[in-house]
Amino acid sequence: MSLQPVLDRIDADLPAALERLMDLLRIPSISTDPAFKGDCDRAADWMVADLASMGFDARKCPTPGHPMVVAHHKGPEGTPNLLFYGHYDVQPVDPLNLWHRDPFDPEVQEENGQRVIRGRGASDDKGQLMTFVEAFRAWIAVHGALPCSITVFLEGEEESGSPSLIPFMRDNAEELRCDLAVICDTGLFDSRVPAITTMLRGLLGEEFTIRGPNKDLHSGSFGGAAINPLRVMAKALASLHDETGRITVQGFYDDVPELPDDLRAQWQGLAFDHEKFLGDVGLSLPAGEQDRTPLEMLWSRPTCEINGMWGGYTGAGFKTVLPSEAHAKVSFRLVGQQDPFKLREAFRDHIRAHIPADCTVDFHGHGAAPASVMPVDDAAFEQSRAALTEEWGIPAAYIGCGGSIPIAGYFRDILGMNAMLIGFGKDDDQIHSPNEKYDLDCFHKGIRSWARILARVTA
Amino acid sequence: MSLQPVLDRIDADLPAALERLMDLLRIPSISTDPAFKGDCDRAADWMVADLASMGFDARKCPTPGHPMVVAHHKGPEGTPNLLFYGHYDVQPVDPLNLWHRDPFDPEVQEENGQRVIRGRGASDDKGQLMTFVEAFRAWIAVHGALPCSITVFLEGEEESGSPSLIPFMRDNAEELRCDLAVICDTGLFDSRVPAITTMLRGLLGEEFTIRGPNKDLHSGSFGGAAINPLRVMAKALASLHDETGRITVQGFYDDVPELPDDLRAQWQGLAFDHEKFLGDVGLSLPAGEQDRTPLEMLWSRPTCEINGMWGGYTGAGFKTVLPSEAHAKVSFRLVGQQDPFKLREAFRDHIRAHIPADCTVDFHGHGAAPASVMPVDDAAFEQSRAALTEEWGIPAAYIGCGGSIPIAGYFRDILGMNAMLIGFGKDDDQIHSPNEKYDLDCFHKGIRSWARILARVTA
Repeated sequence: MSLQPVLDRIDADLPAALERLMDLLRIPSISTDPAFKGDCDRAADWMVADLASMGFDARKCPTPGHPMVVAHHKGPEGTPNLLFYGHYDVQPVDPLNLWHRDPFDPEVQEENGQRVIRGRGASDDKGQLMTFVEAFRAWIAVHGALPCSITVFLEGEEESGSPSLIPFMRDNAEELRCDLAVICDTGLFDSRVPAITTMLRGLLGEEFTIRGPNKDLHSGSFGGAAINPLRVMAKALASLHDETGRITVQGFYDDVPELPDDLRAQWQGLAFDHEKFLGDVGLSLPAGEQDRTPLEMLWSRPTCEINGMWGGYTGAGFKTVLPSEAHAKVSFRLVGQQDPFKLREAFRDHIRAHIPADCTVDFHGHGAAPASVMPVDDAAFEQSRAALTEEWGIPAAYIGCGGSIPIAGYFRDILGMNAMLIGFGKDDDQIHSPNEKYDLDCFHKGIRSWARILARVTA
Repeated sequence: MSLQPVLDRIDADLPAALERLMDLLRIPSISTDPAFKGDCDRAADWMVADLASMGFDARKCPTPGHPMVVAHHKGPEGTPNLLFYGHYDVQPVDPLNLWHRDPFDPEVQEENGQRVIRGRGASDDKGQLMTFVEAFRAWIAVHGALPCSITVFLEGEEESGSPSLIPFMRDNAEELRCDLAVICDTGLFDSRVPAITTMLRGLLGEEFTIRGPNKDLHSGSFGGAAINPLRVMAKALASLHDETGRITVQGFYDDVPELPDDLRAQWQGLAFDHEKFLGDVGLSLPAGEQDRTPLEMLWSRPTCEINGMWGGYTGAGFKTVLPSEAHAKVSFRLVGQQDPFKLREAFRDHIRAHIPADCTVDFHGHGAAPASVMPVDDAAFEQSRAALTEEWGIPAAYIGCGGSIPIAGYFRDILGMNAMLIGFGKDDDQIHSPNEKYDLDCFHKGIRSWARILARVTA
């Protein structure tokens, strides 16, 4: 099954593919607002019909929330089975007055010499999921078959916390389990370089309260002799980083791998514009470990951040109170094999070591999830990278992601599958904001990228 | 004019003196509540009438708030002129349901073998001010004159912030200026030892905001690379004290005098029960400079306390925000010749030195008042101390006070007078609380103390 006729077919069919996307974008499938429940259902129906029309065994699966769409297409014997994930629901559109036209009346607009598809969901995630759907369509149109077995798994609750996702995956594990999950919900690096996201940081959240005197005291009567929990808290929090920005919690870096040389070289090659990255938020100096590049800080290094702290008198004017309590919320982004449960204890020990005999501290744990590091030694990663490089004319990169994308962890933990994250969004797509758009070029090259990836992975 | 007949007269007249006090206590002169404006006026009238009845040239002086009472009694040529200050207004009485009887229906009660006068204002300050008034009455009754010139200056707004006090002192400076101000609104040391308060700490209040990124950031997308103002604030605040509890602001201790040896010896002799002092508020270890005694920490050493700090997400649950701003309120208790305005700048420089290039800090100044150290080399102090020792049978002490009593500073700054603070309250008098009381013994010995002091000072 040769690739070139598939690519030609994609080019020729682009206007029709665009019409299909516009049709899907017209369905206001806002998952978080009950008023649009019928529209979410309609979007699922649309997907089922479209996938069935090209020969997929497709069905809408009810859940307590919005339905899932699951579709299968059998490939030749001995070929791998790939699962493609996307979501058909979209973000709410308010504030509506900031939109330049109806969010659900999409339009292709000319902008700075680029053609963009403007409308809610164009980039997140309807435009993106349709890149793989259109690639399948072209392949089937040309060859009458797909080069491998494909499962399509679409969710309708991604923008509202995915409450049905884990139970559904658990209940349908056998049906969903494939050789590899492919997630199309990420972007190009720097709006320019095709990328596979292979590292996602984990997260550990902690909250604590330091208590000293058994009531609020007057700083005139007690100041100097009575311990002030705010002072204890400042010392404890200040101790979490040393002068070079390293985190001082005992054993914190034990399970943090050094970045492999090839990845380091690749990332250096990305020529990340950290001046612009920080400049956009009014900053100029990277604040993390001083011997790391900004990209390393964001993608491959763990962090410790104070997310909230409070205590004493915080209103207008002044009150010379020596308060009874002080509070803080602290979170860690985790990488490599860092164990959130082990580090939770190490963090608590660290704070306890800064609590004087006259104070007590109580902890309350929030979320705890380890980092995801995708095993790029799976051949599909290098094959996909080559395919992306070929299509975009720029060496594709393995990149990290500072945040967490829970679905990748679910595929691993519930279904035992690796996940490969590839997408074609740009930083200026304004997802979750008014006037969302998706570049027509990203849509087109995205479709072609999947065709090439299918060809490489099944070669 | 011999003392003994005056003391005898005081003893004999005690039942009548008590009746007069009860009469004054029945007037609900709550200054902060406009509903009691007429009662405040009535209390001022009561004082004027009582002082006039014993020959004082007494008058009620209107102010925009409650009236002042000023009364003069001329003494023999060449004797000093002493001003006695007290206040006839009282605290509100809520929560009323916690009182065991009507706060303005005072009663003498027997309690643990002690007789106490129970009622609002018994200790703060009607019972106290009547100690000197009764001493004058006895002296005049016995000798037909006072041993020196006396000015009585009574305020009716002490419990509501004294808004008229400074303008009134300025407008009537000539009339009020005397050789020494005597303030009767303090207590015995440790409810036991007669005391002259000679050191009052000053106060400096500061508030600041540290700004980093130009908006709140997501700690996944920016954590590790973008500076977190909460972390900056924790470091800045933690740096204000070293490991031994000393304050690290440049030059902070320059104008802090060492405690004179005689005062240190006196304080050591007080055998202050710091275990009980701290134990009552759930603490056990003095938290200030480790080479100082708790009394030194409270009375003669400056402090730096965080009174409030806040920033980021402080609600229920968790939000991985990297906030744009962090805030703190910090105050200093000052001693000796520490200059609040010089230290304000030193503090701001200290904080600025902890602000990285990517952050800014804005300061907002609150109150700034230097410490008051009474010049105990004025002979009246030693004479009064001897008189107190004689009356109470326990060596009287010069003590400090951790808080500030603004009136003492006003006498010095506006009228150029030293102030001597002597009072007979006890720690368990429940001033400002339900069931306020004044020991009958304190009232009696207090009157006798003033008689002795007058004798000593004019000897």
